[in-house]
Amino acid sequence: MLRSSRSKPFQRLVRFNSTKYFPTEPPAPILATKTIPGPKSQKINEELGKVYDNGATYFVADYFNSLGNFISDADGNKMLDVYCQISSIALGYNNPKLIEAAKSDEMISSIVNRPALACFPQSNYKDILEEGLLAAAPPGMNRIWTALSGSDANETAFKAAFMYQHAKLRQTKEFTAEELSSVMDNKTPGASDMVILSFDKGFHGRTFGALATTRSKAIHKLDIPTFPWPKAEFPQLKYPLDQFEAENRAEEQRCLDQLEEIIVNSPKQIAAAIVEPVQSEGGDNHATSFFFQGIRDITKKHGVLFIVDEVQTGVGATGKFWAHEHWNLTSPPDMVTFSKKFQAAGFYFGNSELQPKQPYRQFNTWCGDPSKAILAKAIYKEIVASDLVTATEKVGDYLYKGLQTIFAKRSDLFTNLRGENYGTFIAWDCVNVDVRAQVLQGVKEKGVNMGACGDVSIRLRPTLLFEKKHADVFLNILEDTVGNL
Amino acid sequence: MLRSSRSKPFQRLVRFNSTKYFPTEPPAPILATKTIPGPKSQKINEELGKVYDNGATYFVADYFNSLGNFISDADGNKMLDVYCQISSIALGYNNPKLIEAAKSDEMISSIVNRPALACFPQSNYKDILEEGLLAAAPPGMNRIWTALSGSDANETAFKAAFMYQHAKLRQTKEFTAEELSSVMDNKTPGASDMVILSFDKGFHGRTFGALATTRSKAIHKLDIPTFPWPKAEFPQLKYPLDQFEAENRAEEQRCLDQLEEIIVNSPKQIAAAIVEPVQSEGGDNHATSFFFQGIRDITKKHGVLFIVDEVQTGVGATGKFWAHEHWNLTSPPDMVTFSKKFQAAGFYFGNSELQPKQPYRQFNTWCGDPSKAILAKAIYKEIVASDLVTATEKVGDYLYKGLQTIFAKRSDLFTNLRGENYGTFIAWDCVNVDVRAQVLQGVKEKGVNMGACGDVSIRLRPTLLFEKKHADVFLNILEDTVGNL
Repeated sequence: MLRSSRSKPFQRLVRFNSTKYFPTEPPAPILATKTIPGPKSQKINEELGKVYDNGATYFVADYFNSLGNFISDADGNKMLDVYCQISSIALGYNNPKLIEAAKSDEMISSIVNRPALACFPQSNYKDILEEGLLAAAPPGMNRIWTALSGSDANETAFKAAFMYQHAKLRQTKEFTAEELSSVMDNKTPGASDMVILSFDKGFHGRTFGALATTRSKAIHKLDIPTFPWPKAEFPQLKYPLDQFEAENRAEEQRCLDQLEEIIVNSPKQIAAAIVEPVQSEGGDNHATSFFFQGIRDITKKHGVLFIVDEVQTGVGATGKFWAHEHWNLTSPPDMVTFSKKFQAAGFYFGNSELQPKQPYRQFNTWCGDPSKAILAKAIYKEIVASDLVTATEKVGDYLYKGLQTIFAKRSDLFTNLRGENYGTFIAWDCVNVDVRAQVLQGVKEKGVNMGACGDVSIRLRPTLLFEKKHADVFLNILEDTVGNL
Repeated sequence: MLRSSRSKPFQRLVRFNSTKYFPTEPPAPILATKTIPGPKSQKINEELGKVYDNGATYFVADYFNSLGNFISDADGNKMLDVYCQISSIALGYNNPKLIEAAKSDEMISSIVNRPALACFPQSNYKDILEEGLLAAAPPGMNRIWTALSGSDANETAFKAAFMYQHAKLRQTKEFTAEELSSVMDNKTPGASDMVILSFDKGFHGRTFGALATTRSKAIHKLDIPTFPWPKAEFPQLKYPLDQFEAENRAEEQRCLDQLEEIIVNSPKQIAAAIVEPVQSEGGDNHATSFFFQGIRDITKKHGVLFIVDEVQTGVGATGKFWAHEHWNLTSPPDMVTFSKKFQAAGFYFGNSELQPKQPYRQFNTWCGDPSKAILAKAIYKEIVASDLVTATEKVGDYLYKGLQTIFAKRSDLFTNLRGENYGTFIAWDCVNVDVRAQVLQGVKEKGVNMGACGDVSIRLRPTLLFEKKHADVFLNILEDTVGNL
């Protein structure tokens, strides 16, 4: 038995105030309608579409009746969820510990009395941070700025980077009259002409600043104004890794050389470089510790800040709490951004100079949301109490081996299985988009909700409570589906 | 008695789960320490500053013991709050109706099962919208997109504007190969070179796209890269309005003429113009219906979309639910953005073409937050049930007249009282920053939490439950303070 010491959080009743919903995790998906989305889901979605952009809807969900690793749709189908709201559900649906947190006085007060945190912080905000988000801080980091989403987390980190670099140039001098006036006309020198470097296929969000660093797909960027910021190539590794060690090392060195060349030759100062430990939206592209240590060395050498975007990779799913812990860097990144599974968002840092000296610069009305920080605290405590990072590391290993076995038989259709030793953060490529669509549709019909990424990839993003028994259900369904292709 | 028919929500116990906090609104501020912030507040803030940027902290608040219009600090001072978390508390602290909503199963589920709304909407999302945010939609608007903050609301509206304008140019044609490839290098034609026009002194948020339209203060913008977007002048009206009708009309016409000239001569297509009904952060600058009708006419004539930013002015405080209802426009704005008092954020629109035809364009992981939409629903229902917009209109009138009386005696120090017939959305200028600081400090010492804006202005932003009795307390304290100058 894989995790005998763990509690079984989904084998008891979920306690809302007055109603009992679906009582336990089912042993396997329950199919209530012939197709998914079923008729009720379709009807509700049609109605929703009259007032809200629903062009991307998979199905309409019934969250009251979802539980653990199973998401219920409006028709009563209970699907094993390995996509989990685009990788943002850490502890499954209706987790009792989170319901407890949601019902607490602390939460209720934070919801009805939402503060402008930077002006009127609540008296227990530091405690909430210290017991949750800061207790989870990556090695070498003891400060935090809170935000509202992954995009917002990255943009606030960018702003910190720009302000830091300009403060260094300006040294102790005050803002000049020219800076103060030109900035009001959106012109330099008051506005910055520095840039952020990102990597090809990276995804860092959708707000205008974040989107300028996003290089995943054209549809994410078309028709939106952007900044002339540079991008560097991200290594394209060959799989299986142990068969291509030399080539992959050469590919990573090539990308590092290019990165340094871009930095040295950039017509504009590069304030920071941002990278995901695994480029998720862009296709679950991995690189080795060698590459990331190389980024750390090159950025440090040239005074460029190094931001690690752990919005999708953070909070346990890779078998480490933070994916960049896999790298064992000789010195930590300058900032690490987070969101998604933590529900709260923001960035960590260690160097206090990344906090601007003047107030009202890193600022907005809400500066985060204590109700989400409280949720993050509950998530963190449960992850530690049940040792879910270790559990995810182990079940990920089991899952990876199961996938290896399935794909070994159909190497004509599936390649580049990746994520070995990266917990459940696993993906593979399909030979083309048609095969991918067939696989996604095939498992959906058997009750598995799974997500795509990149051009031809499928990514797994289950909860941290995804166990061997769930892996078995999933692998059986996938094997059946693949067998029918 | 001003509002005899209304319930008295703060004269009963606030019911958290297990603890009773400060039981009723006090009749007047309660001062527990000699100075505010008191020693406890200072100590907590010092601790917070070790991990979080606290450079802008006024005082550390105790929200459990705050009630209605009174905010408690960590030392037990109970201050009459006319700033209200930078204008974002609609119904006072610990409003029983909101506590009820926060304790509901609907809320609990939305907190612990936060969906990726555009992919897996919850089955009751349309109902939540229809009973809340959409029931409150401005005239002529029946569609909504939800976001996370005022900045995010404005940026999603900008994106809608850019995509709409490019779709019009592109007509039925597909994206070209050149567009698809150039956008991945952050270049035109795939990236847009269109622009958003905003007005001098306007404030539209802090994320990179929003910040490019923000023209309030240099400190908001310094060292951050921005777009070369145009700004137009906002009228500078003279007060009292009835004495300067002709001059003010000429000033507004001058600004409208300039606006049209900028649009006609812009080297880049202007996708949209954005304006606040009252420029709040920038100094509570008002204009008349003539000016805003002029913007509507000019933008319509030249195919520019008209976005009204009601992030601060919306949700009742101006004596209309939406401030732009004061204008009686001949045709509605194209988009209206909201946040703050609604806790939820986003934009309203009527024309379905403002929704992009392809999915995953107006998109991000969360696309809003149902827990905030549920809160907005509760806020809306209470505003309607207790007719708080009318109440705010009336108490605003009372407050305005009281201020007139006070400032009539000290016209050497205070000028430009504004916000007549605009509910409690009232502001005035101080002769200089020193006088402003003395007034803010003076009322604080007597237990009033008040906020500034612009260069020398003070703005009032009380809750919608600010009654005549609160106005009397406030006016007495202000009069005392002014009398001591």
